Amino acid sequence: MAKKRLNVALIGYQFMGKAHSNAYRQVEHFFPELELVPHMKVICGRNEERVCSAAERYGFEEYATDWESVVARNDIDIVDVSTPGNLHAPIAIAAATHGKITLCEKPIANNLKEAREMVAAAEQNNILHGVFFNYRKAPAVSFAKQLIDEGALGKIFHFRGTYLQDWIVDPNFPLVWRLQKEVSGSGVHGDLNAHIIDLASWLVGDIQEVSGMMETFIKERPVLKEVDDRLGGQASAEMGKVTVDDAAMFLARFKNGAIGTFEATRFALGRKNYNRFEINGSKGSLVFNLERMNELELYLENDPAGLRGFRTIQVTDGSHPYVGAWWPAGHIIGYEHTFTHLIRDVMEAAAKQELPSPNFYDGLKCQAVLEAVEASANNRQWVSVEA
Amino acid sequence: MAKKRLNVALIGYQFMGKAHSNAYRQVEHFFPELELVPHMKVICGRNEERVCSAAERYGFEEYATDWESVVARNDIDIVDVSTPGNLHAPIAIAAATHGKITLCEKPIANNLKEAREMVAAAEQNNILHGVFFNYRKAPAVSFAKQLIDEGALGKIFHFRGTYLQDWIVDPNFPLVWRLQKEVSGSGVHGDLNAHIIDLASWLVGDIQEVSGMMETFIKERPVLKEVDDRLGGQASAEMGKVTVDDAAMFLARFKNGAIGTFEATRFALGRKNYNRFEINGSKGSLVFNLERMNELELYLENDPAGLRGFRTIQVTDGSHPYVGAWWPAGHIIGYEHTFTHLIRDVMEAAAKQELPSPNFYDGLKCQAVLEAVEASANNRQWVSVEA
Amino acid sequence: MAKKRLNVALIGYQFMGKAHSNAYRQVEHFFPELELVPHMKVICGRNEERVCSAAERYGFEEYATDWESVVARNDIDIVDVSTPGNLHAPIAIAAATHGKITLCEKPIANNLKEAREMVAAAEQNNILHGVFFNYRKAPAVSFAKQLIDEGALGKIFHFRGTYLQDWIVDPNFPLVWRLQKEVSGSGVHGDLNAHIIDLASWLVGDIQEVSGMMETFIKERPVLKEVDDRLGGQASAEMGKVTVDDAAMFLARFKNGAIGTFEATRFALGRKNYNRFEINGSKGSLVFNLERMNELELYLENDPAGLRGFRTIQVTDGSHPYVGAWWPAGHIIGYEHTFTHLIRDVMEAAAKQELPSPNFYDGLKCQAVLEAVEASANNRQWVSVEA
Amino acid sequence: MAKKRLNVALIGYQFMGKAHSNAYRQVEHFFPELELVPHMKVICGRNEERVCSAAERYGFEEYATDWESVVARNDIDIVDVSTPGNLHAPIAIAAATHGKITLCEKPIANNLKEAREMVAAAEQNNILHGVFFNYRKAPAVSFAKQLIDEGALGKIFHFRGTYLQDWIVDPNFPLVWRLQKEVSGSGVHGDLNAHIIDLASWLVGDIQEVSGMMETFIKERPVLKEVDDRLGGQASAEMGKVTVDDAAMFLARFKNGAIGTFEATRFALGRKNYNRFEINGSKGSLVFNLERMNELELYLENDPAGLRGFRTIQVTDGSHPYVGAWWPAGHIIGYEHTFTHLIRDVMEAAAKQELPSPNFYDGLKCQAVLEAVEASANNRQWVSVEA
Repeated sequence: MAKKRLNVALIGYQFMGKAHSNAYRQVEHFFPELELVPHMKVICGRNEERVCSAAERYGFEEYATDWESVVARNDIDIVDVSTPGNLHAPIAIAAATHGKITLCEKPIANNLKEAREMVAAAEQNNILHGVFFNYRKAPAVSFAKQLIDEGALGKIFHFRGTYLQDWIVDPNFPLVWRLQKEVSGSGVHGDLNAHIIDLASWLVGDIQEVSGMMETFIKERPVLKEVDDRLGGQASAEMGKVTVDDAAMFLARFKNGAIGTFEATRFALGRKNYNRFEINGSKGSLVFNLERMNELELYLENDPAGLRGFRTIQVTDGSHPYVGAWWPAGHIIGYEHTFTHLIRDVMEAAAKQELPSPNFYDGLKCQAVLEAVEASANNRQWVSVEA
Repeated sequence: MAKKRLNVALIGYQFMGKAHSNAYRQVEHFFPELELVPHMKVICGRNEERVCSAAERYGFEEYATDWESVVARNDIDIVDVSTPGNLHAPIAIAAATHGKITLCEKPIANNLKEAREMVAAAEQNNILHGVFFNYRKAPAVSFAKQLIDEGALGKIFHFRGTYLQDWIVDPNFPLVWRLQKEVSGSGVHGDLNAHIIDLASWLVGDIQEVSGMMETFIKERPVLKEVDDRLGGQASAEMGKVTVDDAAMFLARFKNGAIGTFEATRFALGRKNYNRFEINGSKGSLVFNLERMNELELYLENDPAGLRGFRTIQVTDGSHPYVGAWWPAGHIIGYEHTFTHLIRDVMEAAAKQELPSPNFYDGLKCQAVLEAVEASANNRQWVSVEA
Repeated sequence: MAKKRLNVALIGYQFMGKAHSNAYRQVEHFFPELELVPHMKVICGRNEERVCSAAERYGFEEYATDWESVVARNDIDIVDVSTPGNLHAPIAIAAATHGKITLCEKPIANNLKEAREMVAAAEQNNILHGVFFNYRKAPAVSFAKQLIDEGALGKIFHFRGTYLQDWIVDPNFPLVWRLQKEVSGSGVHGDLNAHIIDLASWLVGDIQEVSGMMETFIKERPVLKEVDDRLGGQASAEMGKVTVDDAAMFLARFKNGAIGTFEATRFALGRKNYNRFEINGSKGSLVFNLERMNELELYLENDPAGLRGFRTIQVTDGSHPYVGAWWPAGHIIGYEHTFTHLIRDVMEAAAKQELPSPNFYDGLKCQAVLEAVEASANNRQWVSVEA
Repeated sequence: MAKKRLNVALIGYQFMGKAHSNAYRQVEHFFPELELVPHMKVICGRNEERVCSAAERYGFEEYATDWESVVARNDIDIVDVSTPGNLHAPIAIAAATHGKITLCEKPIANNLKEAREMVAAAEQNNILHGVFFNYRKAPAVSFAKQLIDEGALGKIFHFRGTYLQDWIVDPNFPLVWRLQKEVSGSGVHGDLNAHIIDLASWLVGDIQEVSGMMETFIKERPVLKEVDDRLGGQASAEMGKVTVDDAAMFLARFKNGAIGTFEATRFALGRKNYNRFEINGSKGSLVFNLERMNELELYLENDPAGLRGFRTIQVTDGSHPYVGAWWPAGHIIGYEHTFTHLIRDVMEAAAKQELPSPNFYDGLKCQAVLEAVEASANNRQWVSVEA
């Protein structure tokens, strides 16, 4: 009576490869209700030595260096695209063409055109697809969604999102791929704003128009010699041009009348992974901060006069989304669990032959906002988001 | 050997009148080093019964109902303009014409033209003048200024300011003067953004250009029947048009290359007086929040590796600005003390016949930013701040 | 139609003298409903130069150096005993004998015997009396009392009180009077534990028995040469013996079945005025911390499942005790306001010819606990608190 | 070139079984430097249906229902004792007798006599042994240890530990095994105080003497019908006697002169897993709270005057213990990772044929303190801890 297993091919073995692997490994042990579970079949990367080592460390059965043949294999059910952004579209489109369940890291593509082609390929091949907007799957965020959908905040007035990091403040930090436009598409914009745009769209609604600005504080950096595991690497003596944004921020108007501010930067010393948003509505407010991702702050105007205040909810209860699968209340979970929850939902959707959420459409929607912000930053005016 | 006293005429007796009165009453008792101290001579307001009661409550020697004769009195040294915004310019200009030390609530005027006229009058009459950007005088903010001036944060990259309140979310909250453009000039923009614009300008530097948006969520409200002491009042059955902004936000570029986000709203439930700013530089970051105004959060990249983190400094030490005058470390001070510190500085400046800080020039600078944001919100483009 | 004024004689001009003076000066300006208000008649201290300067700074009409004649003056209505502990009993008893309203700093006396004599003198002379357990008058604490009395916490299980400071960790800090048993009676025990004992007794109920320990970490210190304003002073080369406790802690059982922990120390680096207590009951919990005295944290089990969490209430609303007299919501008040509230209540009680609260009986009750803890620390057993 | 694997037999499949399983499963994927890694061979429990299901869920190769034959198996290298306390001694002693590496949940035994027998068996059989004081392995706690050992806090004055939970406040919560003395040995005392005693002993030093009190607030509860996964279960109509403590607290004197307070309770509403300790020394202070286990608060007196404050360190850096193995800075880890780190250390010690830390000696030391507190609570005096 063993469970049915879907064979996963993971393309990419760095930070996201590690995080996704963990999700594939863990999901069946904490979500025994799943009918379908992943099997870690093959991991794929260009550097044979590194990908071989990753396969062993992460627990994949095989490794490969040529994604094109991997995505064509008959024994592969799921292709997970965890490469830098410039490879998302080619790999995802190939995977779709081969009818695979295709999961893609965010931002879905390096530009809107690519994103549209990916959606088209997915539709033409009628595949199931997903995108790794993993922060939706933090229990506190999913719980926030539930509260908003139930009307606990009333009509939404404000979204206030910041995603702050500080890992490239040092001008000697090298020119990693995330700082090269031809690889990553953009800097913090696609890396961090993509997350808060998705959260805002999911929690508040579609964004109608934006006014943005983007800034590169440090224009040249040492070329990278050797990459490491933790986003960095070893610098060389040669300098190269930074071709992406160090900071990107924008004002937004949502279709439903709410207004928002968004800011992403890698130049906020002391902020390590400060993905924080606050939402204010006519009945209440809530605040989430990824650095304390097990908590949700909630203010309810309906509380009795004198007793109102932001309450810090430990979202670790059996009554909260996902988290009952883990430990008793007050026993916190970590960053990587968001991926496990996402894979859990993908497995459940796959069992029902339904489209997972979030998926390529969400990726496309996010890409349209990203692109509108870039246009606005260039022409110094408000720009409407393409439908 | 009694101290020399300057006779104060306070025009306006509501919230700001109460706060300023307290400062005049308290300053000499905690700052014995002052050579000049205020004497609470006369308070002036239109409603005789109310102003008479205020005189008694606040401790003024006299009251009056006609500001024009008050500012002309020979025995008045200081005119304090604490009226709604539409009266700032006329009273301040008259006071200047009579050669008075003129102190004015913020925003200095209801528009840039008036602000310019006030500065011109001050210059022509060669008076000392000040403006109540009182939050500069919170010890934690003054200490932040000191740290920034010493270079503790290095080159500034980001300013991130929000001033959030929630007292008009209820659509039945009445149409008080702060919601009427002809009286107050604007809504949250002049009320709250004025504060964070001033703080940003003081701490980071001049703002060069802005892209803004303004929003009025609730367009009509019950006309006010009777005012109360705490910003509100009693509603009538009749409805009237809200002619000011409920929320106002903007992106900014500073002359020195820093970039900023600013947001003010009265629609953030749970935020009572959340004047919070964060500044990120190349060597560190700091955070201030008025609701915990005795604290400053500081992050220093120079701290040893592994030991870095935002430290919560209780700015209540003898080594911190102003606060040594009050109580031992850890014994916090309140909101109104910011005004006492401001009046302390005015008295010291007056004794030296120097211009207090902040003054009309700061008020003018702030007004130019406010007006640029309004222009930007109207024409949906970036707008340069007038010099 | 001027208000009736009670003439105050304040004995003592240091830290507490300054704080009490401020309360006498401010109370009528913020609590206009009072029928009786204080008049700052005379301040008394041994050092003529210092007390003269204090009179001017604090705003007293006169100064004096001989408390015995002051308390005998016919024109004095209120005697405020703000001296070190060894003078509480003699002055308070003399004041009572002359029929004065007698207000005394805490702890009420240096030992239980003295406290009993003070109560006896008060009763024999039928005077009104009060004691400066000022933290009861922090709005958040008064609000906590109200919540507990209404049953919001249900049956109380736990009281957890700490009062932590750090101003004598440095072994070179001099031997001020607070470190000399013959003057101060005890160290942190009477200074800080007195406060949390009073709060616990008021909020939870009478303490029945205790098990305590006391510790002096630094046994010798430089003798004091010259005192300063902020608890310290200048050290001399000579060393003297510290005769009081640096830290004092105890376990307690309340008469109603609740249990408690209490700890006071001046050796907790980083804790400036950390008077924090937590109370857990069958329906909820609350937390107060003097360093953030405008906030109360409250947890209510009755909140809907999933939505429970400690809420941080800003106790600055019109609906909260005392604080409506000051500023709008979110505009915090400071440490000294607790004294102003206490004097407000004394004035109101005096107008009604009622005993203020807290009063000598509360001081006596606290003293009995203090003494039981000392006995327990000596005999290393549980000790019952004398009735 | 596969790694050498140690076959694990896990006895017990409930909360701790689940947590330990996860550690065995994960450790090799995040700590590739290990030479020895665990193999999840067999899980053992009395209820066949449940243990079979657990084996599948947790990923064990086999299951068994008879621990005595399991611990005797030749193919078992490690016996992990995760049963209720009454079975610790028999199983551990049997495992030792068979020469197994023996790992035991805390508290090591239900009383001091048993703990001594376990140590004796371990010594006689010369086995490697460990005990699951897993909170030592939270990176923030290990980092605190490192700081203290380096002298960053100077001489320690105070330890202040509380471990607060709230899961049995409801009188209808059933009589689970943790509330039955014959199974669990004690209530919160062995469950929660055991943790903070171990942390205090490890971080500060040995405890010399104690004065304690214990309380059972709710004396009778519904007998349990059916257990669940998250510490609770279904109640029956029948009532049974609670034979353990609901709360246990004590004062302590350490051998090195520091003093401490300890409190554990399951009656603190709102506290889910509030294992918080604060340590104050002559050079600094630190605070840890398990509910925010990725953070450490640190105060250093050596910081420049004016700049001192508790800093919140995100202990998620490559420079911090263990955590570099996981994700980039600011990406938090969860509760269960503490077990993974502990197993990592066991594997490393086993490879070197060294005794892991913590081990049975630490378990014994903790047990001696637990027993001294119980004795003190009974005889109402200070009691010395047995060597």
